[in-house]
Amino acid sequence: MIVVMKASSSQDEINGVARRIKESGLKAHISQGVEHTIIGVVGQALAEIQDMLQLLPGVEDVIPIGKPYKLASREFHPQNTVVKINDLSIGGDKIVVIAGPCAVETEEQLLATAREVKASGANILRGGAFKPRTSPYQFRGLGIKGLEMLAKAREETGMPVITEVMAPSDVELVSSYADILQVGARNMQNFILLDEVGKLKKPVMLKRGLSSTIQEWLLAAEYILAQGNEQLILCERGIRTFEPSTRNTMDISAIPVIKRVSHLPIIADPSHATGKWYLVTPLALAATAAGADGLMIEVHPNPDLALADGAQSLTFDNFQELMSQLAPVAQAAGRKLAIPSAKVKP
Amino acid sequence: MIVVMKASSSQDEINGVARRIKESGLKAHISQGVEHTIIGVVGQALAEIQDMLQLLPGVEDVIPIGKPYKLASREFHPQNTVVKINDLSIGGDKIVVIAGPCAVETEEQLLATAREVKASGANILRGGAFKPRTSPYQFRGLGIKGLEMLAKAREETGMPVITEVMAPSDVELVSSYADILQVGARNMQNFILLDEVGKLKKPVMLKRGLSSTIQEWLLAAEYILAQGNEQLILCERGIRTFEPSTRNTMDISAIPVIKRVSHLPIIADPSHATGKWYLVTPLALAATAAGADGLMIEVHPNPDLALADGAQSLTFDNFQELMSQLAPVAQAAGRKLAIPSAKVKP
Amino acid sequence: MIVVMKASSSQDEINGVARRIKESGLKAHISQGVEHTIIGVVGQALAEIQDMLQLLPGVEDVIPIGKPYKLASREFHPQNTVVKINDLSIGGDKIVVIAGPCAVETEEQLLATAREVKASGANILRGGAFKPRTSPYQFRGLGIKGLEMLAKAREETGMPVITEVMAPSDVELVSSYADILQVGARNMQNFILLDEVGKLKKPVMLKRGLSSTIQEWLLAAEYILAQGNEQLILCERGIRTFEPSTRNTMDISAIPVIKRVSHLPIIADPSHATGKWYLVTPLALAATAAGADGLMIEVHPNPDLALADGAQSLTFDNFQELMSQLAPVAQAAGRKLAIPSAKVKP
Amino acid sequence: MIVVMKASSSQDEINGVARRIKESGLKAHISQGVEHTIIGVVGQALAEIQDMLQLLPGVEDVIPIGKPYKLASREFHPQNTVVKINDLSIGGDKIVVIAGPCAVETEEQLLATAREVKASGANILRGGAFKPRTSPYQFRGLGIKGLEMLAKAREETGMPVITEVMAPSDVELVSSYADILQVGARNMQNFILLDEVGKLKKPVMLKRGLSSTIQEWLLAAEYILAQGNEQLILCERGIRTFEPSTRNTMDISAIPVIKRVSHLPIIADPSHATGKWYLVTPLALAATAAGADGLMIEVHPNPDLALADGAQSLTFDNFQELMSQLAPVAQAAGRKLAIPSAKVKP
Repeated sequence: MIVVMKASSSQDEINGVARRIKESGLKAHISQGVEHTIIGVVGQALAEIQDMLQLLPGVEDVIPIGKPYKLASREFHPQNTVVKINDLSIGGDKIVVIAGPCAVETEEQLLATAREVKASGANILRGGAFKPRTSPYQFRGLGIKGLEMLAKAREETGMPVITEVMAPSDVELVSSYADILQVGARNMQNFILLDEVGKLKKPVMLKRGLSSTIQEWLLAAEYILAQGNEQLILCERGIRTFEPSTRNTMDISAIPVIKRVSHLPIIADPSHATGKWYLVTPLALAATAAGADGLMIEVHPNPDLALADGAQSLTFDNFQELMSQLAPVAQAAGRKLAIPSAKVKP
Repeated sequence: MIVVMKASSSQDEINGVARRIKESGLKAHISQGVEHTIIGVVGQALAEIQDMLQLLPGVEDVIPIGKPYKLASREFHPQNTVVKINDLSIGGDKIVVIAGPCAVETEEQLLATAREVKASGANILRGGAFKPRTSPYQFRGLGIKGLEMLAKAREETGMPVITEVMAPSDVELVSSYADILQVGARNMQNFILLDEVGKLKKPVMLKRGLSSTIQEWLLAAEYILAQGNEQLILCERGIRTFEPSTRNTMDISAIPVIKRVSHLPIIADPSHATGKWYLVTPLALAATAAGADGLMIEVHPNPDLALADGAQSLTFDNFQELMSQLAPVAQAAGRKLAIPSAKVKP
Repeated sequence: MIVVMKASSSQDEINGVARRIKESGLKAHISQGVEHTIIGVVGQALAEIQDMLQLLPGVEDVIPIGKPYKLASREFHPQNTVVKINDLSIGGDKIVVIAGPCAVETEEQLLATAREVKASGANILRGGAFKPRTSPYQFRGLGIKGLEMLAKAREETGMPVITEVMAPSDVELVSSYADILQVGARNMQNFILLDEVGKLKKPVMLKRGLSSTIQEWLLAAEYILAQGNEQLILCERGIRTFEPSTRNTMDISAIPVIKRVSHLPIIADPSHATGKWYLVTPLALAATAAGADGLMIEVHPNPDLALADGAQSLTFDNFQELMSQLAPVAQAAGRKLAIPSAKVKP
Repeated sequence: MIVVMKASSSQDEINGVARRIKESGLKAHISQGVEHTIIGVVGQALAEIQDMLQLLPGVEDVIPIGKPYKLASREFHPQNTVVKINDLSIGGDKIVVIAGPCAVETEEQLLATAREVKASGANILRGGAFKPRTSPYQFRGLGIKGLEMLAKAREETGMPVITEVMAPSDVELVSSYADILQVGARNMQNFILLDEVGKLKKPVMLKRGLSSTIQEWLLAAEYILAQGNEQLILCERGIRTFEPSTRNTMDISAIPVIKRVSHLPIIADPSHATGKWYLVTPLALAATAAGADGLMIEVHPNPDLALADGAQSLTFDNFQELMSQLAPVAQAAGRKLAIPSAKVKP
């Protein structure tokens, strides 16, 4: 942490700041500049000390140094984290594709989608049973019935399933059905929920909040890691900006930034990022070229009849087309597509 | 809802859209323009139908008409909602001031603050017992001990207390201590929590999410109202923008916008909006002039020793100064300051 | 400037950075921390050196210290700048009100508006002769004819006039008519234009860019000041955010921030900030309570027939009402309204 | 245009709006809904009429239908525009790479860079002679000397050159040297400059403004097209968001959106979008995969000694590496890299 003194600060003020730093059990390195005196704070400095120093007389600014997260940082953990689900690896050299409907609606809809996306090359089945909805009057998911349908689809196709958990009290229930638990964008800073999924021994996918910085996202990841769960996957799904032609703006640079500062795998969700089916394929290809470890794609048998997010869902044909374009881009990026899981049970 | 057809759409496509609208139990009014044919959808149109229509051949855009919230709208409830806590009214003709420390730290700190802010004219005591923190390594509050200290401060000063609830499973506990439950900005779309506080018969204060539109905020309010809890107060606390010189940007226009489209009382939190103590007073005055029903102000005996948000906390003297400047601005805005509650118990 | 070395940086890398700093004619203060070594750069460090240091091996971050503007800073010029137009002062203890139509349309429209706003207490007449318009198909102003009408209105009412200049080549022309030249939000970083108005001996009002930080705004002001023109007024007119219910979001905190870091007067334009006439008065009062030195308000005889920005213009009655509410708020803020200028010619 | 009447509007108010629409020479189609009456406005409706209707009694909202730009729209011009510079095509089936230093500094620097980027496969040389700089104290370019150096580099290498023009009065001068004139992000809404470059018979590249919507960008393009210059190229270079880890956020979805709604070629500038050299290659690949027609890349012989934007410049080696990764991604996207121009003169 560095304290920048005002140009007009007195020697007494400088000494006062240095004294307070020492009282906090830290060391103070004073460096006299042409205009500003700067005081380096040496030691394990808490965020609260930053606030405190900010308020002392003569202080212009307090600048934190280094990253506030540790377990999520590449410095702490130089090797890529690879999350394993059965024979599937996320974060290794293969691109993993998660596909399925936004919401589980009926057994028929889910099974048909599961079969088709698997046939086209998807590795993991997605489907929401508990749906966070902006309005209380929208369809909020089938709940436990939806979880049972997911389990059935897994049994039939051998695909692992990912589904969202919204309530801390549902974590146990959802984890008894799902292979990966998803924490949604609106819950990225639901710290109670983060603590709960952190206690699991199961993979968790943490979506980036609509207006979260990459640093806040990694601090949310830190909550989960700090509880002992290291099977963590990040998912970029667009941030909120002023541009109205897409639902969100996919922050494509977040992918190489995360790869640089963290060891966690990162996948991209172009369906939620854009909100428009005809933008999903170009953004899926872009994310892959930028280094994403996988994709999450909404697919629906009849998008125009979907109970949620139809406008951004691909038809089976469109998804197949996406997969056929994805393979050469993955190869150009030095990766391969993961092979769809064989059926677990005969 | 209005469907705008592409300039190039065929008569068959127009008929197809009209047919689908009728199949959904709605009426279609076709209006041929110079460039675009427009189809009005008459009836109770769900959001899902919007997505569905968007996907039909020949459709350029689907535009929702009217507001997606109902109970929160002024059209539904033309009179101002006035929330009562004992003899205090929020949303009436008096300005209510909530003050206290960001986090409850010790009994001494809380009681000293309570006495001082009451003496300066504050009406309600604030203090966090459960604190949402960006990093897992920050002070997360005293929990139930903090709630007990708040109860003690209420007993001594007669001031009602407001405190945040983060977990759905804590709603009952917190409501057994607090006079008003606060739902924080990061939980504005924690729909499980909204449902829970909606079942209470106690006032709730709903803070605006960091990147929530006013419409999303009112839809979150709708969750609470839809469960039957009408004792609801909104709180503007700044939105996330690109400007780095304040922690957030207080959206001052949200105050008159809310007053126009909704009946709910709205208060302003300049401490969180700015993150800097020297901006709190000018923004408190501005919010009052713009029509806010009250203010929420962080005050700490020693801001430079606070365990949370010290940089934005006022000292006792600064708070007293704020209150003395507030009275004439309230009067200029045609309001008065509410009188501090008399002690409940003798 | 401070160079933060990576936790993993070697002694050679640290020495390399220090050597390069010295080669640039600056001094390097090395400070060994627990995790990070920090190197203070002492001397007049240019922005280019920041980029250069960022690229050296072992460097994690380079943090500039202090403000990049000088002439615009309060440290350089502790007293408030007061801009004088005849007997009127902007930036002193009186609140100045600028009012008039968005665009000059006809002599009749302008004169009627000028008389009415003066009668209600306005001090300066505004009116656009050159209009920046998002679309090439919108009304772009009357040009020189508009300037002549402004001159005529000044002659008749004695009010100084302010009007926008868009082209560097028009600066001389516009300054021969106007008392204050306005540089619009879209031209805040039109550096050629800034240089030109900086050469004038006439007041300039610099609007904040739609997505400009306060620091960039003051750097744009620095362009004008650096050319020798110190008669400079800033104008906050809203920034671009994700919120759709207003055209822009008025950054009310910019007012006290500017007052703290700069000596320049600042006025607020709630008409452009909101885009909605019914929000103009509450935001005008808020800006005044927050410490603005004046207001700029769009007024039109028949807003529903205006050629530009009718939706945000006040009628004469609404403007009169605003002025009657403004006086007590100004007084509560320790200010008074400036007295409308007497007619210059008899 | 559609007028949405308030739920509470009277028949008189509805008739009043319809009458005013007819008085404006347009037709009104009234459609009675369950809650809202909607009035379709048929005819060529100007933006001013929208403002006017908004103000009439009983009106809740006025919604424009269709796009406000015409010449830039794909509906008006279904085929892709292909801009030709000698034997090079931008917007065809080949990916074009523009490379060179941010600013022209010396003849030596420019020539060395030109030779190297050509050898690595670049097609066009970039270099700024007039530089828009946030601060008046930064290096603002060599001006005409820089233009002469660009001409010399073209003569030697045969590469066409692109350079920025900032002042309307410089358009003639710059166009006498450059093959493509660049209008920078800060000048995207400098309408005087747009008019001037619109009168040229030379290719223009229009960068997206830092906080411009895609629609505003296409309206700026419309200014140029409306003056008769159809040799227009768009350039996405990142938009301003709250995320601090990159200088801007590259809006990757803008590429397929532009391809859908417009016929103009679009290239991507990952150097300015990110501000960090190590993010340039992944974003260049992503933009290509998303369908961009070309790239603009900053390259410098010694980025750590550059006078402008060194932190985002590639070294020669890094650029060569980028080009070698680009070829397979272009191919995967169904494109090829354009072949570097042969030397014009022997």
